[in-house]
Amino acid sequence: MNKDAKFAVLGGGSWATAIVKMLTNNQEQVGWYMRNADAIEHIKSQKHNPNYLTSVEFKPEQLVLTNDINEAVNYADVLIFAIPSAFLVTELKHLTASLQEKTIFSAIKGIVPESGLIVGEHFNELHAIPFENIGVITGPCHAEEVAMERLSYLTIACADTEKAELVAQNLACAYIKTSISKDIIGTEYAAMLKNIYAIAAGIAHGLGYGDNFQSVLMSNAIREMKRYTKRIHNLDRNINKSAYLGDLLVTGYSIFSRNRMFGNMIGKGYTVKSAQMEMSMIAEGYYAAKSAYNIKENFTKKVKTPIIDAVYKVLYENKNPKKVFLDLTEKLD
Amino acid sequence: MNKDAKFAVLGGGSWATAIVKMLTNNQEQVGWYMRNADAIEHIKSQKHNPNYLTSVEFKPEQLVLTNDINEAVNYADVLIFAIPSAFLVTELKHLTASLQEKTIFSAIKGIVPESGLIVGEHFNELHAIPFENIGVITGPCHAEEVAMERLSYLTIACADTEKAELVAQNLACAYIKTSISKDIIGTEYAAMLKNIYAIAAGIAHGLGYGDNFQSVLMSNAIREMKRYTKRIHNLDRNINKSAYLGDLLVTGYSIFSRNRMFGNMIGKGYTVKSAQMEMSMIAEGYYAAKSAYNIKENFTKKVKTPIIDAVYKVLYENKNPKKVFLDLTEKLD
Repeated sequence: MNKDAKFAVLGGGSWATAIVKMLTNNQEQVGWYMRNADAIEHIKSQKHNPNYLTSVEFKPEQLVLTNDINEAVNYADVLIFAIPSAFLVTELKHLTASLQEKTIFSAIKGIVPESGLIVGEHFNELHAIPFENIGVITGPCHAEEVAMERLSYLTIACADTEKAELVAQNLACAYIKTSISKDIIGTEYAAMLKNIYAIAAGIAHGLGYGDNFQSVLMSNAIREMKRYTKRIHNLDRNINKSAYLGDLLVTGYSIFSRNRMFGNMIGKGYTVKSAQMEMSMIAEGYYAAKSAYNIKENFTKKVKTPIIDAVYKVLYENKNPKKVFLDLTEKLD
Repeated sequence: MNKDAKFAVLGGGSWATAIVKMLTNNQEQVGWYMRNADAIEHIKSQKHNPNYLTSVEFKPEQLVLTNDINEAVNYADVLIFAIPSAFLVTELKHLTASLQEKTIFSAIKGIVPESGLIVGEHFNELHAIPFENIGVITGPCHAEEVAMERLSYLTIACADTEKAELVAQNLACAYIKTSISKDIIGTEYAAMLKNIYAIAAGIAHGLGYGDNFQSVLMSNAIREMKRYTKRIHNLDRNINKSAYLGDLLVTGYSIFSRNRMFGNMIGKGYTVKSAQMEMSMIAEGYYAAKSAYNIKENFTKKVKTPIIDAVYKVLYENKNPKKVFLDLTEKLD
């Protein structure tokens, strides 16, 4: 991997904006694709993203902004995708430039609804990208705290260590520490599963369970995540590292997490549909719950996942959250 | 162990009050010792503890209240100590009744400052109580949520499984689920260490670190706790169970935790002394940090404990918290 590799970020949301901010500390220029042409004009003239992390000031001369995904792909060697998983396929439909020589990092953390795959698998299976060209950028990291330059730790996972290191070096700065990992499957599944657990935490909170229960739920969630990721990819991973447990905690304890908020509304009595309408968006854990449930139903050797099962029953089988969680409390310890 | 065993709780604070509340669901009568004679009179006439968990209503005829510790010891077969560890030795000085035939459970969670021992070890070494008569009651459990009858999970640890089960059965009720464990040393050390980690979380918060860092700190803390408890007592424990990880989280994420509050003041610039005076009490983690540090300094095989070391340096070596935590951030991942 070339040390002078060029980077582009794909996406216009808060996490994309945070990643561009990190890269501009290390790269002279950074490619940045977003759909919204007005936002691009705003960044060029006002030096900040009008919609997300508005406090972050950019030097427009450092940015190669475009609303043509192909331009961004052609510009860069390393592509960092930070598009919500629900929109990834729609965006990729516009792609005519080739991804073959590119290194593709996912900062997406979710299931692609159309394929039911995590993002790395999606690129591998549907775009024939070999796994050594695929990586994952994972937290624990709220983008809002990157904007405030509060110390955060990222894990950069890739089967190819050199690529992981290149990306890690280009994201690291005074307020970002990076570690590398080879566990792209495990980190990506963990990042996806944690959104389901955040929904569970929200439902519990909405139903009136307190902090004592929340800690028991998280303690059971990390054990469930360990069993699940072990079955997906049997590796000797330490599930208590930041990329797994840290990421679970930062989401599961965040009152700003969309997944937790969505769960909270369900716990308070909203239907799934009305909660989604009220939030005017769909929490990523909603798709994740279905996929994680279906995937584990196909495991040849079964694994106990009481929390995923409970969230699935509430979201997809129209079961009463109060009853489902009462059953769940019997299965936790 | 007799199924008709009588219970007494020793202590007048919120955790003692919560435990009495649980026991009264299962026992016709419960012994309850507290120093404060006025509080006893208040409970008898007004049906609640005037100082702690005032919303909890008792039936006075169910309580055998006394301000003579020997009366409570003579009354009961199972003694549950819920006196702050800093006052335990002073209280035990009044003891003339024998503890020899008693089962002693500690709900204290801390180091006895005078002996530098955890409570179980203190009873074993200084009162010649055999370990099979000693047990531990551990959370994650804020007493305030027991008062509100919010679902909580307790772990009851004792080398003698029958005794653990007896105590577990007598604490369990609609809102309390219990598990038993044989790991009295590990659960008690974990409960002690978590107070140090809560101080660390408080210092970090006071210094301006955010939620991203907090999750990294907790992820490192549980790994440190695993290494530490393994060296203290090498057992095949799952550190992610509620008694260890859950207990760490409920304290480390609680804004009501005295230990976290104490740390927060230190992080904000208070001296140790002024923080203690301001709080008009000494957080248990203050003693724990010294003991945990000294104990691990004597390990023949060294163990890495960067978080305990950092808290120790701030509290006992008068080091600048900002600098110490900047060093600490380099040691976490």
